Amino acid sequence: MLCLNWLLVGALLALAESWNVVHADDGSERNCSAMPPYLPPTAVNTTQRLRALRETMSSLNVSAYIIPGTDAHLSEYIAQRDARMAFMTGFTGSAGTAVVTQNKAVLWTDSRYWVQAERQMDCNWELKRDVSISSITAWLIQEVADSDGIAFDPFLFSIETYEAYSRNLAPANMVLKSLPDNLVDTVWKDRPPVPSDVLIRLPDRIIGRTWQMKVEHIRSQMRDNPYKPTAVLLSALDETAWLFNLRGNDIPYNPFFYSYTLLTLDEIWLFVHKDRVTKEIKDYLNGSCFQANCVQLIEYNQVRKMLSDYLTRPGVKVWIGTEYTNYALYELIAPEEKSLTSDYSPVLTSKAVKDKTEQRILREAHMRDAVAVIQLLMWLEKVVPEGKETEMTAAKFVNECRSKQKENRGPSFETISASGPNAALAHYSPSNETSRKLTVKEMYLVDSGGQYLDGTTDITRTVHWGTPTDMQKEAFTRVLMGNIEISRTIFPSGTRGINMEMLGRRALWEVGLNYGHGTGHGVGNYFGVHEWPVGFQGNNIPFREGMFTSIEPGYYKENDFGIRIEDVVVTVPAPTKYGHNYLTFETVSLVPYDKKLIDTSLMSPQQLQWLDLYYQTIRRLLVPELDRQGLTEEKEWMLRNTEPLQRSTASAAMSSFSLTFTALATALIHDFI
Amino acid sequence: MLCLNWLLVGALLALAESWNVVHADDGSERNCSAMPPYLPPTAVNTTQRLRALRETMSSLNVSAYIIPGTDAHLSEYIAQRDARMAFMTGFTGSAGTAVVTQNKAVLWTDSRYWVQAERQMDCNWELKRDVSISSITAWLIQEVADSDGIAFDPFLFSIETYEAYSRNLAPANMVLKSLPDNLVDTVWKDRPPVPSDVLIRLPDRIIGRTWQMKVEHIRSQMRDNPYKPTAVLLSALDETAWLFNLRGNDIPYNPFFYSYTLLTLDEIWLFVHKDRVTKEIKDYLNGSCFQANCVQLIEYNQVRKMLSDYLTRPGVKVWIGTEYTNYALYELIAPEEKSLTSDYSPVLTSKAVKDKTEQRILREAHMRDAVAVIQLLMWLEKVVPEGKETEMTAAKFVNECRSKQKENRGPSFETISASGPNAALAHYSPSNETSRKLTVKEMYLVDSGGQYLDGTTDITRTVHWGTPTDMQKEAFTRVLMGNIEISRTIFPSGTRGINMEMLGRRALWEVGLNYGHGTGHGVGNYFGVHEWPVGFQGNNIPFREGMFTSIEPGYYKENDFGIRIEDVVVTVPAPTKYGHNYLTFETVSLVPYDKKLIDTSLMSPQQLQWLDLYYQTIRRLLVPELDRQGLTEEKEWMLRNTEPLQRSTASAAMSSFSLTFTALATALIHDFI
Repeated sequence: MLCLNWLLVGALLALAESWNVVHADDGSERNCSAMPPYLPPTAVNTTQRLRALRETMSSLNVSAYIIPGTDAHLSEYIAQRDARMAFMTGFTGSAGTAVVTQNKAVLWTDSRYWVQAERQMDCNWELKRDVSISSITAWLIQEVADSDGIAFDPFLFSIETYEAYSRNLAPANMVLKSLPDNLVDTVWKDRPPVPSDVLIRLPDRIIGRTWQMKVEHIRSQMRDNPYKPTAVLLSALDETAWLFNLRGNDIPYNPFFYSYTLLTLDEIWLFVHKDRVTKEIKDYLNGSCFQANCVQLIEYNQVRKMLSDYLTRPGVKVWIGTEYTNYALYELIAPEEKSLTSDYSPVLTSKAVKDKTEQRILREAHMRDAVAVIQLLMWLEKVVPEGKETEMTAAKFVNECRSKQKENRGPSFETISASGPNAALAHYSPSNETSRKLTVKEMYLVDSGGQYLDGTTDITRTVHWGTPTDMQKEAFTRVLMGNIEISRTIFPSGTRGINMEMLGRRALWEVGLNYGHGTGHGVGNYFGVHEWPVGFQGNNIPFREGMFTSIEPGYYKENDFGIRIEDVVVTVPAPTKYGHNYLTFETVSLVPYDKKLIDTSLMSPQQLQWLDLYYQTIRRLLVPELDRQGLTEEKEWMLRNTEPLQRSTASAAMSSFSLTFTALATALIHDFI
Repeated sequence: MLCLNWLLVGALLALAESWNVVHADDGSERNCSAMPPYLPPTAVNTTQRLRALRETMSSLNVSAYIIPGTDAHLSEYIAQRDARMAFMTGFTGSAGTAVVTQNKAVLWTDSRYWVQAERQMDCNWELKRDVSISSITAWLIQEVADSDGIAFDPFLFSIETYEAYSRNLAPANMVLKSLPDNLVDTVWKDRPPVPSDVLIRLPDRIIGRTWQMKVEHIRSQMRDNPYKPTAVLLSALDETAWLFNLRGNDIPYNPFFYSYTLLTLDEIWLFVHKDRVTKEIKDYLNGSCFQANCVQLIEYNQVRKMLSDYLTRPGVKVWIGTEYTNYALYELIAPEEKSLTSDYSPVLTSKAVKDKTEQRILREAHMRDAVAVIQLLMWLEKVVPEGKETEMTAAKFVNECRSKQKENRGPSFETISASGPNAALAHYSPSNETSRKLTVKEMYLVDSGGQYLDGTTDITRTVHWGTPTDMQKEAFTRVLMGNIEISRTIFPSGTRGINMEMLGRRALWEVGLNYGHGTGHGVGNYFGVHEWPVGFQGNNIPFREGMFTSIEPGYYKENDFGIRIEDVVVTVPAPTKYGHNYLTFETVSLVPYDKKLIDTSLMSPQQLQWLDLYYQTIRRLLVPELDRQGLTEEKEWMLRNTEPLQRSTASAAMSSFSLTFTALATALIHDFI
């Protein structure tokens, strides 16, 4: 699935024209310049709540208040009670920042959400079609007169975000005012409560390392660090969940629970809502003792107080990751000698490399997941020509297929089921208003994933049930070539994804096509579907053996169609002629691509060979799985769709062939001409 | 030529084993563990000067003093009077940092220079085989007890460097002490004086824009900037030289002169040694008036005083580039609202894009330069079998060939003329002690360049006059494939070099080979041979049309051979089927590669096609040039070495062929198997 942060990548992306502003004149969007202004039924009346917020701001001498779309853990998906930006603006997209002054209210969001924002916001709100912090600060510099009148909730800013704002505001002599009590909460009367679900522990059968082993692993990194940190502070929800092999149910699609952890060399403080910790979990965590391997449970909202107390101890130094620690905790850790910062905490970098058990079960989850996606594609092939199915019914169908697979815990994100022009909207999910009927005349893109107790999946396939145009075939093939070029590349361990991701674009660039999002993100074991810090963006960490990432190039033609081909891959050792410590990617998603859309004449012999080997792998792994599940028709469909594309005697052990192939072909053609 | 900063790139490089430490036991290196210690004749006795420096440090309560290898303009090449690190240590390499405490003296330098350092330093000095700031600060944290005892000369630190040190020292509660009066200078009795050469102006025939036009261009960027800077401060030597179309002779190989500029919206302050400005130059600069387009000449050493004065004016804000402004000036520009920072000044980013005149004359300089390199290669082919030539005589020969070319102003750097194992040392230049005889049994690498009034050149060719091994051919071909893959790639304008440079490595990676340096750097019009901020490193700016960069992948086999293939290219528009605003590279270096080392069977049809088109370009441009110079034998040599490598009917207009070639070859081979 496309990743939230991706449109921020700026420099690389050179956003295609496909993101231009187009206004619908079908009444689905507001028209604030009409007299009187026109509002669609989907727009939310924000007049009262804005008035209340402005009164609160006045009483605190706040001229401008910044309302980000995230929570205190910088989560990508947030619980309803944290949807403050949505409450204030009406806009429910997953990315954006709102700013309110006494006479203006402005929302910044990226191109994925411009249409949605125009449908959901009333005319109190202005939409800025940008998402960069520099755009927000430029506006603040222009609009706000007093240099210390801009306030924010420090729980909702990462350290990185805070520093970016400060860097931009400083030359204008402006500073941000930190207000740890959120102002939106004071006017949000029916704010949803904290969920009451209890925490659960992962069963031993899917665990390679106990939480005690993980704690020791992190502590050993603390001891080895030359700056001698005395504690590690964990702020992101997956950090604590990973460390203790625990999961929860507080965040949609993500099995997380509200938490922080302060791990010192001889204490473990776990900040949670204590009434949600059962006796079983308490015993599991040694919650009744106070030694170095006993977890002391502390009430979630005590984190600032307890951290402050800890910081009064002599000689302490807290190690934090600046990308996922909120500023509310960081601002306590002054002066500077009390903090040690890295981009990511040692928990996030350790979590990025899967152990043998995690690798095995994540591969297994992908096998079962492939069955569900194959069921969807096979079913659509049959029923679409009958003309009764829609984007919505297709999404429902794949969710149901997944739910029947072992260990499934629901979808890992809201399924993107998009036909024709809807697929050109990169983050589209169907609703009753927008859902298109599926037909043999349009391309169809489905980006979906499942949560399983043993792994998280994420896969995108694009298909055409009729006759694609030449342009559609060419674009699809070039997207596929991009996917293959990354997948088959061999690189030294320690290479960064950002330095290889152009391989996903190069075949498109050759003919002047491109896509306006990133090329891949980490995935986890029953975690978030976008698992940082692995992936292909500038702030991802270098690839090491045992990391899982998606690869997902695409192409989007506005008002026409959208293509994305996404697979999850794992970094594995690559034997080379002269060197060692080289890696390559092995694809663990196991669903064939739409043959009808592949123009093999555009592909290199190496690409075709890769594809045929991949199809052999699908057969090898899925035949037994489909047999086990008694799915004969699905097996036939899979075998039909994984027939070799090369009419050659390609075998799995022909790597030297790939090297001499071009030479041979060249020689042949010379004789031919 | 390889670039100074390249081995800092860390993450990407995963330095190959070829950089392991090997000690010569031929007496050319010191042996400090022998009793008594052994010192080669090349070692410098530093006992007296260290004693003097330590006395000075004592009197100022300095526990550790940092001595960088650069000058106040963060120059890559420095004048003798700025070679403080070399004076203190004996080590004359171009990269390194020395630190002196009361009982230790340590030099940090990178793998290019480890052997040289062992030859030049006496046993007062310890060598650290690392060059990262974090290695230096880790050592300081361990060795220095007092938290404010570490001093440095702020003129010799960029803002970036200062911040990197501070970031690393802060967690240890240590701060750097800024001492603007350099301590080495106080003990350096016979320090060379400032050169007395006068400044020269570029002739009108090679200028597209007058200095007044450039000043207006920069001022318009100041006016357009939302932060409303009132001045731009120029600290790097090429910034001032570019702005005024002036050159000097203060720095070896680089036509620069000591200078700073403060450009405000209505004043121009040029800080130079005023006695070196002739009446002609003064008139040229309108040096006698005080309007917005008159250049006020101010004595070079007044820069801190005058900048301080300027900063007392109300409402001023100075725009500086953090990579090339020294900390001595930056520390004056406090508080924060008086500064506006970007990585590079608007002069450096403007200079990066060559205007039409600059592009034309830089291409012309490369044509003449190619003649000199062809003369060298042709001559070596003839004389090497006779067994009388050495690395030194070859270097001398190419310099002489260049000196005969129109507008030549000497070499643009010290020629790297390296045979056999010497070529495996990435930054080797021959000396009387190390120069090898050239033979038909060894590979030979020559990396050289010229300064011409109209342009700076830089080219590397690797050749073999006998029979190369299979491994040598494979490595050479894969290096060439890397060069071609970058050169022929099509990419959206605004793509960063760092996101494409893996194309230069990919063919090597496939077989487990790599190289431990960067892949290319900007070049200029009679400027530094390494012209920032263009290139393929992380801190280079995105590519736009009209930028010149080198492309120079390589491979180095320790104690055996070294390969590098370097060309200068220019970014030009690439017409594409569907898009616009795409670029590709056009190679402006015009010297064929050694046919004997190319294994065409490894190359793709697209690579072979590119190569043949390149050879056609060489012929088209060099036949008239060689004819004009009456060089018949050279012309024959060039024609022989640019014969098509494909036995096909390749023509310049066969782009559709490249697309269908693979398909055709695939079809053929199917029938064949």
